[in-house]
Amino acid sequence: MIVTIVSIWVKEPFIERFIEATKDNHRHSVSEPGNLRFDVLRHQKEPNRFTLYEAYRTEQDVLDHKNTEHYRRWKTTVEEWMEKPREGVPHTVIAPEDPSLWK
Amino acid sequence: MIVTIVSIWVKEPFIERFIEATKDNHRHSVSEPGNLRFDVLRHQKEPNRFTLYEAYRTEQDVLDHKNTEHYRRWKTTVEEWMEKPREGVPHTVIAPEDPSLWK
Repeated sequence: MIVTIVSIWVKEPFIERFIEATKDNHRHSVSEPGNLRFDVLRHQKEPNRFTLYEAYRTEQDVLDHKNTEHYRRWKTTVEEWMEKPREGVPHTVIAPEDPSLWK
Repeated sequence: MIVTIVSIWVKEPFIERFIEATKDNHRHSVSEPGNLRFDVLRHQKEPNRFTLYEAYRTEQDVLDHKNTEHYRRWKTTVEEWMEKPREGVPHTVIAPEDPSLWK
């Protein structure tokens, strides 16, 4: 399992549109066969900062996600709304160890 | 729902002990009635850096977690093993909106 935690800073005028586009990405991503989680979060103290928590079974599933139509649509749509490039940090999983507990 | 993402940097000689103590904290925390998730992750590129992903139903559940015996035991045990103070960032949830999808 791989978890990528993505930090995104959004320019204030685009926040509502960013949220809608990212909900669309969420809805499609959780239907991918290799996806385990795709949580969309907002920082309590910095409301223009968002976090995506993307869990996949394998590295191949991560690559497959980046080739989906919904990911490409999201990326193209939101890229100009970001204050700076987003940062994705890949993690390995220590717990829970059982993948069935992730879905 | 509240998600706290905690970043922890561990001094190299204590990494294995930190992992064991944190698995213990994980096992007990997921049994708390207000807990939705308690994932323990390790950075792929900085192996002495760890992330806890702690989701709770309410702010009160977050407070209750901090009063549990297992949390206090974990905190006391691992505190001296950290390179610097850990950083916890609280988030609100945008998606999934349905709490039943979090457990």
